Amino acid sequence: MTSPAPNFYFPAPRVQKFCSQCGALIIQRIPPDDNRVRDVCDNCGAVHYQNPRNVVGVLPVWQDKILLCRRAIEPRYDKWTLPAGFMELGETTAQGAMRETQEEAGAQIELGPLYTVIDVPHAEQVHFFYLAKVLSDELYPGPESLEAAFFDIEDIPWADLSFRTVVTTLEHYLADAKTGVFPVHHYDIPLPDAR
Amino acid sequence: MTSPAPNFYFPAPRVQKFCSQCGALIIQRIPPDDNRVRDVCDNCGAVHYQNPRNVVGVLPVWQDKILLCRRAIEPRYDKWTLPAGFMELGETTAQGAMRETQEEAGAQIELGPLYTVIDVPHAEQVHFFYLAKVLSDELYPGPESLEAAFFDIEDIPWADLSFRTVVTTLEHYLADAKTGVFPVHHYDIPLPDAR
Repeated sequence: MTSPAPNFYFPAPRVQKFCSQCGALIIQRIPPDDNRVRDVCDNCGAVHYQNPRNVVGVLPVWQDKILLCRRAIEPRYDKWTLPAGFMELGETTAQGAMRETQEEAGAQIELGPLYTVIDVPHAEQVHFFYLAKVLSDELYPGPESLEAAFFDIEDIPWADLSFRTVVTTLEHYLADAKTGVFPVHHYDIPLPDAR
Repeated sequence: MTSPAPNFYFPAPRVQKFCSQCGALIIQRIPPDDNRVRDVCDNCGAVHYQNPRNVVGVLPVWQDKILLCRRAIEPRYDKWTLPAGFMELGETTAQGAMRETQEEAGAQIELGPLYTVIDVPHAEQVHFFYLAKVLSDELYPGPESLEAAFFDIEDIPWADLSFRTVVTTLEHYLADAKTGVFPVHHYDIPLPDAR
């Protein structure tokens, strides 16, 4: 307990070696009444399911400008992104989107409607982006952002955006802005090599 | 390896005692560069994040009748439900919804658009229901269903439905059927005691 703290890390996604309930070695097999291989524990009987994660964020608009953050973390370090991050336990997608906006941009926003719902199966994720109105041009980017800034539409750094869900959400917004109607868009992002 | 198989179980949600990477005891603390308590391992440095799960299903319609399944599993054993279940790794919400329909009802369907997206924060879940057209009245319910059956609108067993997301999805459908327009509905289900 007095040894120096280790370097913290996020375990290689989806790899489990020991049972989180009893500490015994895990094996991979199909449990009873199931139809796919799971991480199971033959010592205590625990079945360790794993499921996709949700990423929640906003498309924040301030007087016809778009708020973007430049990432201070991997993946996509130094790329520009819409404020977004993993949904946490106990919150709604809307609450998570507002929290991420606060953490990454420190922006005051008024949350609008859900705008894009995007399946990203190769990343084992679903992404949600809300429209949002920025209420002040004061920004206080947090440690996950190198900076936060407003961009005119014609100045969006398309070649330096972080993720395809960010690119496509912005593309939908620019298209819908011509009509002023912003319905929910739901679509999949295919595997990168399948595009 | 030759001992009798234990009774398999799904560990009490969200409780972890041992590190899945090295088997050491887990402690709860705020890791560096984070802002909330996580399950962390001071032996190997693993941070074990936990996130909400997605439930994916369909609202299957056959000649003005609704397909429901009577649950053969807890929770809500014996209650009627729309076919739905936990989204699995590597699939889209649409693929998961089709898989669950096959597993629980054995129904041939043509998947329609995403219809309801429902935040259920107290259950740490987001539910997705798609509209679907049933292509044949032949049903082959699987082991998670006691039976599967078609219901006329006036015969829907409202008092014996499984979950509030099922109730509200059906309510939206009946209201929208009057206009023939079925937009995406996004809303939250509040805590039961807050209703």
